[in-house]
Amino acid sequence: MNAPLPLAAQIVAVLRDVTGPGSVPLHAPRFSGNELAYVQECIDTTFVSSVGKFVDRFEADLAAFTGAGHAIAVVNGTAALHAAMLLAGVQPGDEVIVPALTFVATANAVAHCGAVPHFADSSEATLGLDPVALGAHLAEIAEIRDDVCVNRTTGRVIRALVPMHAFGHPIDIAATVELARTWHLVLVEDAAESLGSTVGGRHTGTFGRMGTLSFNGNKTITTGGGGAILTNDPELAKRAKHLTTTAKQPHRWEFRHDYVAYNYRLPNLNAALGCAQLEQLPTFLAEKRRLFEKYRAGFEGMTGVRLFAEPAGCRSNYWLQTLILDDDRAGERDTILAATNDAGLMTRPAWTLMHRLPAFETCPRMALPVAQSLERRIINIPSSAILGSSGAA
Amino acid sequence: MNAPLPLAAQIVAVLRDVTGPGSVPLHAPRFSGNELAYVQECIDTTFVSSVGKFVDRFEADLAAFTGAGHAIAVVNGTAALHAAMLLAGVQPGDEVIVPALTFVATANAVAHCGAVPHFADSSEATLGLDPVALGAHLAEIAEIRDDVCVNRTTGRVIRALVPMHAFGHPIDIAATVELARTWHLVLVEDAAESLGSTVGGRHTGTFGRMGTLSFNGNKTITTGGGGAILTNDPELAKRAKHLTTTAKQPHRWEFRHDYVAYNYRLPNLNAALGCAQLEQLPTFLAEKRRLFEKYRAGFEGMTGVRLFAEPAGCRSNYWLQTLILDDDRAGERDTILAATNDAGLMTRPAWTLMHRLPAFETCPRMALPVAQSLERRIINIPSSAILGSSGAA
Repeated sequence: MNAPLPLAAQIVAVLRDVTGPGSVPLHAPRFSGNELAYVQECIDTTFVSSVGKFVDRFEADLAAFTGAGHAIAVVNGTAALHAAMLLAGVQPGDEVIVPALTFVATANAVAHCGAVPHFADSSEATLGLDPVALGAHLAEIAEIRDDVCVNRTTGRVIRALVPMHAFGHPIDIAATVELARTWHLVLVEDAAESLGSTVGGRHTGTFGRMGTLSFNGNKTITTGGGGAILTNDPELAKRAKHLTTTAKQPHRWEFRHDYVAYNYRLPNLNAALGCAQLEQLPTFLAEKRRLFEKYRAGFEGMTGVRLFAEPAGCRSNYWLQTLILDDDRAGERDTILAATNDAGLMTRPAWTLMHRLPAFETCPRMALPVAQSLERRIINIPSSAILGSSGAA
Repeated sequence: MNAPLPLAAQIVAVLRDVTGPGSVPLHAPRFSGNELAYVQECIDTTFVSSVGKFVDRFEADLAAFTGAGHAIAVVNGTAALHAAMLLAGVQPGDEVIVPALTFVATANAVAHCGAVPHFADSSEATLGLDPVALGAHLAEIAEIRDDVCVNRTTGRVIRALVPMHAFGHPIDIAATVELARTWHLVLVEDAAESLGSTVGGRHTGTFGRMGTLSFNGNKTITTGGGGAILTNDPELAKRAKHLTTTAKQPHRWEFRHDYVAYNYRLPNLNAALGCAQLEQLPTFLAEKRRLFEKYRAGFEGMTGVRLFAEPAGCRSNYWLQTLILDDDRAGERDTILAATNDAGLMTRPAWTLMHRLPAFETCPRMALPVAQSLERRIINIPSSAILGSSGAA
């Protein structure tokens, strides 16, 4: 009996089998619908900028798709997070709990408010925030004073909780909602990666006071650059639009602005792309699910690695397909990354944990054993919807 | 002899004569070149987001057109100002001198740095910052301590000077450069409105340490939403790009970010529009100049109002054509605004002066007699390039 192939070679073989030949990006957008027609309409009517029918339509379509009461379109996911945190009442000097395992935007947006991120551990079951471990941590370091959560260690107010649905997989949202209520934290869901992901049929980003989306080029749908704030509160939605459009009072010609605000409005040109993409989202989601099934068949029985599957009771958009190495194979991560990328199969590890970035290394945090373990073991593999289409290899 | 028509009716008559029939916007973009072809190329190649050949080309084309050593494309003019001020070393608690007569973005960007705007008066000759009056003010309230300019009244460091070329007309830049040198202020030119405007043949935005541009939908050229930072310093250009692209270190797969930074990169889709628009900029500038000549002929000899002409030694892009009422006719401003807008000729007044907005009313300022007078007397009239094309009425 021959020795089995090294794990890296086995993984390359499965990826190649599923993706077919050629150079395979991690996640490429697809424009197979009305993208050009809608963009052309912007150009023909000259409505390319911050006013136009596609911005309004994109917001209405997003609200309809997610079931959120309201959607406010902005220039990108970071802007959505920044505005949502400001609307959540985050003040300079506050703390905001975010996962250590996230894209840097989540922590940056806290810093953009002049606040301090407080890093929480992840769950092996969801790859997102672990509400049980966080509850135990808060019981140790926090208390409620005058209806506000205070970190006894730092003396700062902990104002908000901003979990992130990593790679599109929903977190344990019921326990997270309960935790936020117990500790008087405003819950803002960073749903940048989870458009199309639901828990018990309800869309991620609609459980908290607000949710935020991203439509960057590598997301499930793209507007070039773009993002949105979701909320069920009509008053908050109005404030979100005002804050992201320089707080200008409506007037026939006068320029009066109510307070220091932001130029975060999504241009109509980008919204046009978004409307066309959103029409195809159900197709993309079906294809991404089919891709997951192909990978599942390919990785079945392979030892040393597993393909991450949506948590029970959840439906994931499978934004980025995720391999998780067994603990004793974590040392092979970089070999696998090199072998796959060398073979033209683009893969990447999880983000460097936030508390290890120079900007955030002195920020408060709980023990992060699971996030640290996942960081050493996660590999994202090619995930474009097209790879799951019936016509693909 | 009949009584002359009221001023409002006279102005309506001239505007209508120059613009021809129909509803006339203040400033509409025109897409008569390669806009659709370039945008289609983005869609066909799927490069719509933060990486792509049009972003690189747009930056190179902007540098070539303005003569700046480097241009860094960002999501909008506010983002350009914010990033430029951070790069200028503006710290929380600093003061930054900006004109009282400007769009709110100039002052907002100061506040976004955690700094305090300090409002300066305007010049009747340029509509922009008056360096002579500002010099007298600084002599009274400021001093140099350890090479840094300090406001003796507030105790704060005055870090930067950010004049704005209002409506596209260049300020007295030589005296402003000298003033900045004398008082150790970093000069950042807000050239949001002055793409194509020059002083002695040199482009506005290239005299200071940095300059900023805007490509909002109402500007001389548009990218939907967009902006840029100009600088002649290659090191600063590198830092500007890093700061506006989340400070991510280049690496084959790792996500490491050097510091808290921003997601301000212009998407390729918007840059594609910008490349096509920039190709037509010389035509637009010629048409806008021809429109000025038409208005000049129309308003010649009218009493009570004058059409603003580019300052001596300067070439203006005539972004927004500007009427200035005589002091004793300022009371008729709102009547004229109502009459013109009622007639379908879109006009607007100057922006509300910054120190009268609630957010900035307690900020330091010099005496503002000229800005206050101009605010009561300025009316911007329809200014689209198409109105100056040979084919137009």
